[in-house]
Amino acid sequence: MLRDQVMTDASRRWFTEHERFMHSAFALQTKEKLHEEQSPFQHIEIYATESFGNLMVIDGCIMLTSKDNFFYHEMISHPVLFTHRAPKSVWIIGGGDCGTLREVLKHSGVEQVLQIEIDERVTRLAERYFPELCQANDDPRAEMQFIDGIAWAADAPADSVDIIIVDSTDPIGPAKGLFGADFYRDCRRCLREDGLFIQQSESPLFHLGIIANMRRAMREARFVRQQTLFFPQCVYPSGWWSVTMAGNVPLHAFRRDDAAGKAFATSYYNHEIHSAALAQPEFFKQALAAE
Amino acid sequence: MLRDQVMTDASRRWFTEHERFMHSAFALQTKEKLHEEQSPFQHIEIYATESFGNLMVIDGCIMLTSKDNFFYHEMISHPVLFTHRAPKSVWIIGGGDCGTLREVLKHSGVEQVLQIEIDERVTRLAERYFPELCQANDDPRAEMQFIDGIAWAADAPADSVDIIIVDSTDPIGPAKGLFGADFYRDCRRCLREDGLFIQQSESPLFHLGIIANMRRAMREARFVRQQTLFFPQCVYPSGWWSVTMAGNVPLHAFRRDDAAGKAFATSYYNHEIHSAALAQPEFFKQALAAE
Repeated sequence: MLRDQVMTDASRRWFTEHERFMHSAFALQTKEKLHEEQSPFQHIEIYATESFGNLMVIDGCIMLTSKDNFFYHEMISHPVLFTHRAPKSVWIIGGGDCGTLREVLKHSGVEQVLQIEIDERVTRLAERYFPELCQANDDPRAEMQFIDGIAWAADAPADSVDIIIVDSTDPIGPAKGLFGADFYRDCRRCLREDGLFIQQSESPLFHLGIIANMRRAMREARFVRQQTLFFPQCVYPSGWWSVTMAGNVPLHAFRRDDAAGKAFATSYYNHEIHSAALAQPEFFKQALAAE
Repeated sequence: MLRDQVMTDASRRWFTEHERFMHSAFALQTKEKLHEEQSPFQHIEIYATESFGNLMVIDGCIMLTSKDNFFYHEMISHPVLFTHRAPKSVWIIGGGDCGTLREVLKHSGVEQVLQIEIDERVTRLAERYFPELCQANDDPRAEMQFIDGIAWAADAPADSVDIIIVDSTDPIGPAKGLFGADFYRDCRRCLREDGLFIQQSESPLFHLGIIANMRRAMREARFVRQQTLFFPQCVYPSGWWSVTMAGNVPLHAFRRDDAAGKAFATSYYNHEIHSAALAQPEFFKQALAAE
């Protein structure tokens, strides 16, 4: 999310995140700081907030709150899973809070999910402070490895997975390599022929250039099609977020009847919201057409 | 938007708005305060911001910025205009910044727009600091009256208008009466038989109770159908906003071909975004079903 400078005013008990490029800020009133540590990879803080439940902050950027993480976790999971014809195996690269894992495992056809998170501390803290997101961690279909996702994708066998979900931090610091053509090329090689790739792609209002760069790198990696999906996400800069899907099959079409008849509960996603997320705002269409 | 307490830290040059119920805050970095006054109705401030152009604040609440007002103004105008079969006359109640007026007048079939804003100072300041929103103010089809919209609707003749747009501040202070069944009943009487009513309806994430109350009051006023539409709005609390339409005709259907072939430019709205805005999030459907 390309933000720097954190102003945590202890006396007022607000956690504030400043967005560097658009000179805006978002803040949540906190009750107390529950935890703080420097992991081998990043600085992690956990707060109890007044109205958003618990809050996880990494390197000064808001990662998630108990209250509103459902938008992101549902929208990075269900659209791609209902777009694939019959997904059996899924990799989640990043996703240490386990919220994406929980959503993916709601799909009964999925036989195997491998979560590849570089920082085990994120998962251990999620287990403690966001236990509802970790409900599915003991599912026999789930496996966790705490290793580097970029190295993993470079070494993994070809044609070995149906869906790769990249649920990472912003394209600065450790996650930078997850937004480039080399990584996308490795993922494409690991995916089966009808496989799908999806990645969080920042704010359509604040970070249009990042989305355009991602889509260009996906094309370089010979993903024939790209599709950006849009959804609200209150605690991320601009309050509006996106995920971008890549693959070699039509990405607008999805198993609509299966989505409409899904046997599991969601808070934001349904088949109509899936269609809605595919609609491209006028300024976005024009910006991509000008590429 | 039910917010109080403004913290304007002159030394840091940030304008901060606190959301009282959800204990969150949003801030924009400012370059200078361009204007401040107490009108007969409210306290108005104008700032130049670092990245959002000019900013108008009323009674401590962010009303609009140059950068992102297009979401709101397009979504309170085009969906209702393309839902009506052939709108010729439109009232805008509130809308003093004239951005809604400009969008409405883009529809060539519209013959007459009456803007009823209680506070002339808002319009005069918009002309000065948001001239792009006032481009259509001299259109011969436009008329402005600076009077109380509630009194206007109580006295206006029955069956006299096709569309009423309520583009007001939050349901506290002077705008409170614009959110009640008495006002809705007056509007219903003024509307022609196939007439449509639309009103800004706050954040679906923060103010679900307000939306539920509005829809209940609309039913009390014997509007048979209600339809809430959703869209991003970065500078309003939660970054996600809504408008709610009421009428006695199906509100899901719209003149899709006309919207797809519209002869005017927009930044967010298009026919696909119109369909998308109609999709009801799962939690929203469940909350309304429980009513």
